[in-house]
Amino acid sequence: DFQRALVEVQPAFGMGKDDFARCLLGGFLIHGDRVRKALEAGKLFRNEVASSDRSPLLSILIEGPPGTGKTALAALLAVESGFPFVRLISPESFVGYSDFSKCQALAKVFDDAHKSSLSVIVLDNVERIFEWTPIGPRFSNSVLQTLMILAKQVPPKGRRLLILATTSNIQVMERLDFKQAFSAILSTQTMERNEIESVLDGTAESMNISQQADGTLASLHSSGLTPTLFRSLGERDMAV
Amino acid sequence: DFQRALVEVQPAFGMGKDDFARCLLGGFLIHGDRVRKALEAGKLFRNEVASSDRSPLLSILIEGPPGTGKTALAALLAVESGFPFVRLISPESFVGYSDFSKCQALAKVFDDAHKSSLSVIVLDNVERIFEWTPIGPRFSNSVLQTLMILAKQVPPKGRRLLILATTSNIQVMERLDFKQAFSAILSTQTMERNEIESVLDGTAESMNISQQADGTLASLHSSGLTPTLFRSLGERDMAV
Amino acid sequence: DFQRALVEVQPAFGMGKDDFARCLLGGFLIHGDRVRKALEAGKLFRNEVASSDRSPLLSILIEGPPGTGKTALAALLAVESGFPFVRLISPESFVGYSDFSKCQALAKVFDDAHKSSLSVIVLDNVERIFEWTPIGPRFSNSVLQTLMILAKQVPPKGRRLLILATTSNIQVMERLDFKQAFSAILSTQTMERNEIESVLDGTAESMNISQQADGTLASLHSSGLTPTLFRSLGERDMAV
Amino acid sequence: DFQRALVEVQPAFGMGKDDFARCLLGGFLIHGDRVRKALEAGKLFRNEVASSDRSPLLSILIEGPPGTGKTALAALLAVESGFPFVRLISPESFVGYSDFSKCQALAKVFDDAHKSSLSVIVLDNVERIFEWTPIGPRFSNSVLQTLMILAKQVPPKGRRLLILATTSNIQVMERLDFKQAFSAILSTQTMERNEIESVLDGTAESMNISQQADGTLASLHSSGLTPTLFRSLGERDMAV
Amino acid sequence: DFQRALVEVQPAFGMGKDDFARCLLGGFLIHGDRVRKALEAGKLFRNEVASSDRSPLLSILIEGPPGTGKTALAALLAVESGFPFVRLISPESFVGYSDFSKCQALAKVFDDAHKSSLSVIVLDNVERIFEWTPIGPRFSNSVLQTLMILAKQVPPKGRRLLILATTSNIQVMERLDFKQAFSAILSTQTMERNEIESVLDGTAESMNISQQADGTLASLHSSGLTPTLFRSLGERDMAV
Amino acid sequence: DFQRALVEVQPAFGMGKDDFARCLLGGFLIHGDRVRKALEAGKLFRNEVASSDRSPLLSILIEGPPGTGKTALAALLAVESGFPFVRLISPESFVGYSDFSKCQALAKVFDDAHKSSLSVIVLDNVERIFEWTPIGPRFSNSVLQTLMILAKQVPPKGRRLLILATTSNIQVMERLDFKQAFSAILSTQTMERNEIESVLDGTAESMNISQQADGTLASLHSSGLTPTLFRSLGERDMAV
Ligand SMILES: Nc1ncnc2c1ncn2[C@@H]1O[C@H](COP(=O)(O)OP(=O)(O)OP(=O)(O)O)[C@@H](O)[C@H]1O
Ligand SMILES: Nc1ncnc2c1ncn2[C@@H]1O[C@H](COP(=O)(O)OP(=O)(O)OP(=O)(O)O)[C@@H](O)[C@H]1O
Ligand SMILES: Nc1ncnc2c1ncn2[C@@H]1O[C@H](COP(=O)(O)OP(=O)(O)OP(=O)(O)O)[C@@H](O)[C@H]1O
Ligand SMILES: Nc1ncnc2c1ncn2[C@@H]1O[C@H](COP(=O)(O)OP(=O)(O)OP(=O)(O)O)[C@@H](O)[C@H]1O
Ligand SMILES: Nc1ncnc2c1ncn2[C@@H]1O[C@H](COP(=O)(O)OP(=O)(O)OP(=O)(O)O)[C@@H](O)[C@H]1O
Ligand SMILES: Nc1ncnc2c1ncn2[C@@H]1O[C@H](COP(=O)(O)OP(=O)(O)OP(=O)(O)O)[C@@H](O)[C@H]1O
Ligand SMILES: [Mg+2]
Ligand SMILES: [Mg+2]
Ligand SMILES: [Mg+2]
Ligand SMILES: [Mg+2]
Ligand SMILES: [Mg+2]
Ligand SMILES: [Mg+2]
Repeated sequence: DFQRALVEVQPAFGMGKDDFARCLLGGFLIHGDRVRKALEAGKLFRNEVASSDRSPLLSILIEGPPGTGKTALAALLAVESGFPFVRLISPESFVGYSDFSKCQALAKVFDDAHKSSLSVIVLDNVERIFEWTPIGPRFSNSVLQTLMILAKQVPPKGRRLLILATTSNIQVMERLDFKQAFSAILSTQTMERNEIESVLDGTAESMNISQQADGTLASLHSSGLTPTLFRSLGERDMAV
Repeated sequence: DFQRALVEVQPAFGMGKDDFARCLLGGFLIHGDRVRKALEAGKLFRNEVASSDRSPLLSILIEGPPGTGKTALAALLAVESGFPFVRLISPESFVGYSDFSKCQALAKVFDDAHKSSLSVIVLDNVERIFEWTPIGPRFSNSVLQTLMILAKQVPPKGRRLLILATTSNIQVMERLDFKQAFSAILSTQTMERNEIESVLDGTAESMNISQQADGTLASLHSSGLTPTLFRSLGERDMAV
Repeated sequence: DFQRALVEVQPAFGMGKDDFARCLLGGFLIHGDRVRKALEAGKLFRNEVASSDRSPLLSILIEGPPGTGKTALAALLAVESGFPFVRLISPESFVGYSDFSKCQALAKVFDDAHKSSLSVIVLDNVERIFEWTPIGPRFSNSVLQTLMILAKQVPPKGRRLLILATTSNIQVMERLDFKQAFSAILSTQTMERNEIESVLDGTAESMNISQQADGTLASLHSSGLTPTLFRSLGERDMAV
Repeated sequence: DFQRALVEVQPAFGMGKDDFARCLLGGFLIHGDRVRKALEAGKLFRNEVASSDRSPLLSILIEGPPGTGKTALAALLAVESGFPFVRLISPESFVGYSDFSKCQALAKVFDDAHKSSLSVIVLDNVERIFEWTPIGPRFSNSVLQTLMILAKQVPPKGRRLLILATTSNIQVMERLDFKQAFSAILSTQTMERNEIESVLDGTAESMNISQQADGTLASLHSSGLTPTLFRSLGERDMAV
Repeated sequence: DFQRALVEVQPAFGMGKDDFARCLLGGFLIHGDRVRKALEAGKLFRNEVASSDRSPLLSILIEGPPGTGKTALAALLAVESGFPFVRLISPESFVGYSDFSKCQALAKVFDDAHKSSLSVIVLDNVERIFEWTPIGPRFSNSVLQTLMILAKQVPPKGRRLLILATTSNIQVMERLDFKQAFSAILSTQTMERNEIESVLDGTAESMNISQQADGTLASLHSSGLTPTLFRSLGERDMAV
Repeated sequence: DFQRALVEVQPAFGMGKDDFARCLLGGFLIHGDRVRKALEAGKLFRNEVASSDRSPLLSILIEGPPGTGKTALAALLAVESGFPFVRLISPESFVGYSDFSKCQALAKVFDDAHKSSLSVIVLDNVERIFEWTPIGPRFSNSVLQTLMILAKQVPPKGRRLLILATTSNIQVMERLDFKQAFSAILSTQTMERNEIESVLDGTAESMNISQQADGTLASLHSSGLTPTLFRSLGERDMAV
C-alpha cells in the first residue's frame, strides 16, 4: 500500500547508498574557495560533535539558491562523517503522507538517533518538508512545530547528534523563528562564470568519497553536466 | 465505483490513442515562424534527454493564453518522442478525486516513469491540477507540494525523464516558486490575423504525425475550425 | 434517504417535463427586440453544434440581473433544440449534497452526455451551484474546479455538446477565470416600462413551444403576472 | 438522543400552539400607525398568495432592531392566515444540529410545504439560522446557500407558498445578495415614547387572535411588560 | 472516561457547594459603595424575576477587569437567590469537550432550567466558554451561536429564568452583537488603594451567606489575601 | 503505538530524574546578580505557596530570549521545592499528539496536582505547547484555551499549586491575554561578556542540587560549554 515506510538508510559501511548516491549524482566538485570553506566549516562542526562531551547536539542550516549544491554538501558531510547512524530525510520520502504520519515518522528517526552514540540526520529541503507555499502563506503547522521541537531536543546523556538541514528560503526560516534553533548557518551561492568553466574544463577539484567499497559514488561525478549547469548554460546560450 | 483508475496510456507504437487524439483534435498547424521555433526548441530538449547521459531529468513549462495550442504542442512532442513510456496527466483525469488520491496517482505515474529507461510525462494545465482559483487565492497545497517534489525528483541512475507541463498562468507559477523547478520555458501566443487566415486558407503547414499506423491522428486536423478559431471569429464578426 | 438521485430528465419527446416546466412557468414572452436577438443568437449556436463537424463543443453563458429570464431562455433553447439528450442541472437538485457528491453527479451528467451524439446541458444559476457568497468570499473550490474542467472537456470524436449556463454575477465569473471558458456570452436585461406594459397588455409576442404533445408548457405562460413582474410593479406602485 | 426532530407544527385549527404562543407571549399591540400599516401590508401579500393563480411564491422579509416585534408580527400573520400548512423555523429548533442536518431539515419543511395547496413558512431570525457573526465574519455557507435556494424555489403547479422571514440585520442580508430574493421588505422600528406609554396605559389597540379555540393566545398579551419594555424603561429610569 | 458529566449543582439547601464555594473562596467583601450598589442592582433583578409574572426571562451581564469579583458577585447572587434550580456553567467544566458536546451540554442545562418554576444559570467567563482569542480573532462560532440563542430563549409559560453571565471583555461582547441580548449590564472595577486597605484591615463589610447550614462558605472569606490582592500588592511593593 | 503516555515524573525523592536532568544538563550557574535575584524571587513565591493558607494558587511566567536559562531555572525551582508532586510538561512530550489528546493530557496533570497538598507544574516553552507560529499567525486555539483555563483554576480547599511557565515570546503571551493570568513575571537575559567569561573560567557560582541521592544532577553542570555558549562563542569568533 501507499504509505511507504520511511527510507531506512543503513549505518555507514553499509549505508543506504541509493538515496545519498542520488544526492551526489554530480559528485561534489570544489570549484572555488567558498566551496572549500563551507566544506571545512561543516567538518569542524562534525568534529566538535564527535569529539567533545560538551556539545551533545549541534545543528547546521545550509542555505542558498536552488541548485547551488546544498543537498550535495549535506550528503557529503553525512557520508564522510563515519558516524554509525546516518539518516536522510527528504521531502520525496513523504509524498502521500498525512501530516500526522509525517510527524510520527520524523519523531521515529530522532528517537532512533537518540539511541545511537553518534548520529547524523540530514533534513533536506526543510521548507518543502513542512509544505511551505509563499501564497497564503500555507504550510503544515503541525509538521513545522514537530521539526522545531525535534531540532532542539537534546539527546540523552552520552549520545550526540549532528543535524544538517538545507533550505533555499532562509527568510522564511527566520520569519518562522526556526533559524534561531540552529547552532550555525552555512551559505552556498550560485557559481560564477569562472567556476562554471573550471567545472566544464574538468579543472575543478573533486571530492574523493573514500568510504565507498564498490566505488559507486566515487565514479558518479565524472558525468559533469548536471541539470543546474545545463540550465545555467541555457540561460546564456539558448535563444528560445 | 467513482474513483476511476488513472488513464493508463500504453507505450508508443501501442500508446493510449484516445487521450492524445483528443488533444490533437485540430491537429497541429505550423502557422508561422514562432510556432516552428517553439516546436524545434521542444525537440532539442527531447533529444538532449534521449541522447545524453548527463541530463537524466529535463522539464519544460509550456505557457501561453488559453487556446494557443499549449496542449497540442505538448501532446505532439510526446507522441513524436518515440519514448517507450508516455503518459498524459490532465485535470479531467482527476474529477472526483480527493487530494490524497490525486497525490497517490501522481506519485504512481512518476514511480512508473522511473522504471522505464526513457519516459515523457505531460502535466496538462498544471494549475488546474492543483486547483488554483485567483479568488482567495485557493488551491490544494498538498497537490502543489507533491507536484513540486515530483517535478524535481531525479530518476534513478540509468533512467531519463522528460516532463512537459502546460499552464496559462505563468505569473502564478512564478509566485508559487514553481516556475524555477523547470529547465526551460516555452511560450505560445494568440494567433495574429494573417496566421488565422493561413489556417483557414489551408496554407498553413501541417504537422505530419507519422507514427500513427491507422492514420487517426493524421486525418484529424483536416476539420479546420477549432473552438478557438470559432471564438476568435465570433469576437470579430458576430454582433451578439 | 436524503441524497436524492440527480434529476433524470428523459430524452426529448419524452423529456422530464416537470423541471423545465417549472422554469417556463411564465412561458417565454418576446417583449422586445433585445429578447428576440438573444433568442436568435442562441439558436445560431445550437445549429452550429447540430450541423457542423468542426465544433464538437460550444458553450454559452447567459448572464443578466435576477428575474430577467435567463433560466427561461436556457430552458426554451434546450427544449426547442430537439437534441436527443437534454439535462437541467439546477442548484435545487443539490440541496443536501456534499461537495464530493456534487462533483460526482456533475461528472456523471457530462459522461452521459458524451455518450449521446447530440446533447444539451443546462447549468442553471452556476454561481449558486459552486455556492458563491460575496462575503469572504466563500465558495466550494472543488465544485468550481470540477465545473471549469467539465465545461472545457471536448466530447469524444463524433459526439457534440452544447452547454447553456446562466449566471446573475458575470463579474465573479470573470474574476474566477471561468468566463473565458465559454464560446459566447448572451446578456439579458431588466424590462423597460413599455416592455412590462406589452406583457401586461398581452401584446407581447409569445414563444410557441411546439414539441409539447400534451400542451402543458404551451398553456403555462397564459398566467401573466410572474413574481418578477409582481415585484417590479410593487416597487413602483406600493408604498409599504 | 440529542438531535431532536424538527418542530412539527400541526395545521391551523390544530396548529402547534406552543411555539407560536411563545412568539406571541406579549400578544400583538397595535400601538401606532406604523404598526398598523406593516400589519396591513403583510395581509395584502397573504391575500395575493391565497387568491391569485399568478403568484405561486411570495416572500416577505420583516426587518428591524431587536425587540421591535418582528417575530410577533410574523407569528401573527402565520396564525391568522388560515392556511392549512403553517411552520415556524426558529434558530432554537436547531441548537445541536450539524450544518448538514440543518440543511436536511430545512429542505424537508419546504418539501412538505410544496405538497400543500397553501402554505406559510416562518423563518425566524434568519441570520441566526445561518449562524452569522460580525467578527470574521463567520457564518455557515452551506446553510446560507440552502436557504437562498429554497427561498426562491417556485412550488409545483397548483401549490402556493408564503415565506415570512425576520432579521435584525438587513445590511448583512443585502451584502449576501439574499435580500433580493424576497418579493417585499417590511420594516419595524423601536417604539417611541408615546407608543410605550400607550402600551403601559393599556390604550394601545390589541390584536385579537380569533382562531384560538381555547383562548390561550388571546389571553397572553394581557401581561403587558415584555422584556423589551422592561429594558427600555431600565435604560431611562435605572441608574445602575 | 474523559468527557466528564456537566457539573450537576443540587437545588438550594442542598446545592453543589464545591463549585460555588471555589468561586467564593475569598468570600464577598463589600469594600466600598460601588460594590454595594452592584450587589443591590443584582438583587433588584432577582426580585423582578421571582415576583413578577411579566418578566419570565431576565439576563444580567456582569463585566469588569480580571480579578474584580465578577464571579464572586454572580455566585453570591445565585447562592442567595433561594431559587430551587441553580447552575454554574464555567469554562473549567468544558475542558476536553468538543464544540458539539459543549452545545449539547449547554442546551441540556437550559432545558432543565425551563422545567423549574424559578431558575438561575450562571455563565461564568462567557468569552472563555466560546473560546475567544484576540489574535485572529478565533472563537467557536457554534458555541457562540448556541449561547446567543439560549440567552434569548423565553422559558415556557409559568417558568422564570435569571441568567447571570460574567465577562472581562465587554468590547468583544458588543462587537459580537451579544451584549444586546442582555436585559442589563453591571460593571465591577479594580479596587482603589483605600478599598484594598479596608480589606486588609478587616474593616470591609463582609457578605453573610446565611443559607449555608454547615457554615463552609461563611467561614471562607476570613482568609483575606486572595490571588488578586496578592498580585496588586506585588505590583506595588515587589521589585522583581 | 505512537501516542506515548505523558511523562510521568515521580514525586520528589523519587522524581523522574531523566527529564529534569536533561533540562539541567548544563547545571545552573549563578553567573551574576540578575540570575541570583531571579532565583530568589522564584523561591519567595515557592515559599508563599508552601507556607500561606491565603494563596492556594500562584503562577510564575519565566520569560527571556532563547538559551538564557529559563528552562534551567524552572527545573531548578521545581526540583528544589521539595513539594511532593512535581511535573514537567514540555512540548517534546506532545510530539504526535492531536489537539484533543493534548488537552486531555494537560487536564490530567492538573487534576492530579489538585489531589496533592503541595504541587509544582512546569509548563516549559508554553507557546510551543499551543503551537504558536508568527506567520499567520497559527496556533492551536483549543490547547491555548485549555491552558488559560487550567492556569487560573484554583485548587480545591486545602490544596496548593505553584505553576512555573517559560516562554521566549512574552509579546505573544500579552497579545493573547494570557500574560495577565500569571501572578508574577520573571525575566532572564542574554549573558554579558563578563558573565560568559566567569562561566568559562569556572568562577561562576554553581547551584548545588542537594536533594539528589545519587548525585546525577549535581555532577552534570561540570561540563561547562552548553550549546548556548557554543553559539555565542561562534558568533564572535568563527568566520563562516
Ligand atoms: N559544488 C558542487 N560540486 C559538484 N556538484 C555540484 C555542486 N553544486 C551543485 N552540484 C550539482 O548540481 C546539482 C544540484 O546540486 P544540489 O541538488 O546539491 O543543489 P541544491 O542547492 O540542493 O538545489 P535545490 O535547492 O534544488 O535542492 C547536483 O547534481 C549536484 O551534484
Ligand atoms: N498551432 C496550432 N495548430 C493547430 N491547431 C491548433 C494550434 N493551436 C491551437 N490549435 C487548436 O486549437 C484548439 C485549442 O488548442 P489547445 O487546446 O492546444 O490550446 P491550449 O493552449 O492548450 O488551450 P487551453 O489553455 O484552453 O488548454 C485545439 O483544438 C487545437 O487543436
Ligand atoms: N422574456 C420573458 N418572457 C417571459 N417570461 C419571462 C421573461 N423573462 C422572465 N420571465 C418570467 O419571469 C420569471 C423570472 O424569469 P427567470 O426565472 O427565467 O429569470 P432569471 O433571470 O433566471 O432569474 P434568476 O436570476 O432569479 O434565476 C419567470 O417566471 C419567467 O417565466
Ligand atoms: N407591536 C407589538 N405589540 C405587542 N408586543 C410587542 C410588539 N412588539 C414587540 N412586542 C413584544 O415585545 C417582545 C419582543 O418582540 P419580538 O420578540 O417579536 O421582537 P423581535 O423584533 O422579534 O426581537 P428579536 O430581534 O430579539 O427577535 C415580545 O414579547 C413581543 O410580544
Ligand atoms: N468584592 C470582593 N469581595 C471579596 N472578594 C473579592 C471581591 N472581589 C474579588 N474578590 C476575591 O478576589 C478573587 C478574584 O475574584 P473573582 O474571581 O470573583 O474575580 P473575577 O472578576 O471573576 O476575575 P476573573 O476575570 O479572573 O474571573 C476571588 O478570590 C474573590 O474571592
Ligand atoms: N544561568 C545558567 N546557568 C547555567 N546554565 C545555564 C544558564 N543559563 C543557561 N544555561 C545553560 O544553557 C543551556 C540553555 O539553557 P536553557 O535551555 O535553560 O535556556 P532556555 O532559556 O530555556 O532556552 P530555550 O528558549 O531555547 O528553551 C542549557 O544547557 C543550560 O543548562
Ligand atoms: Mg537540494
Ligand atoms: Mg490546454
Ligand atoms: Mg434563473
Ligand atoms: Mg424575533
Ligand atoms: Mg471570574
Ligand atoms: Mg527552554
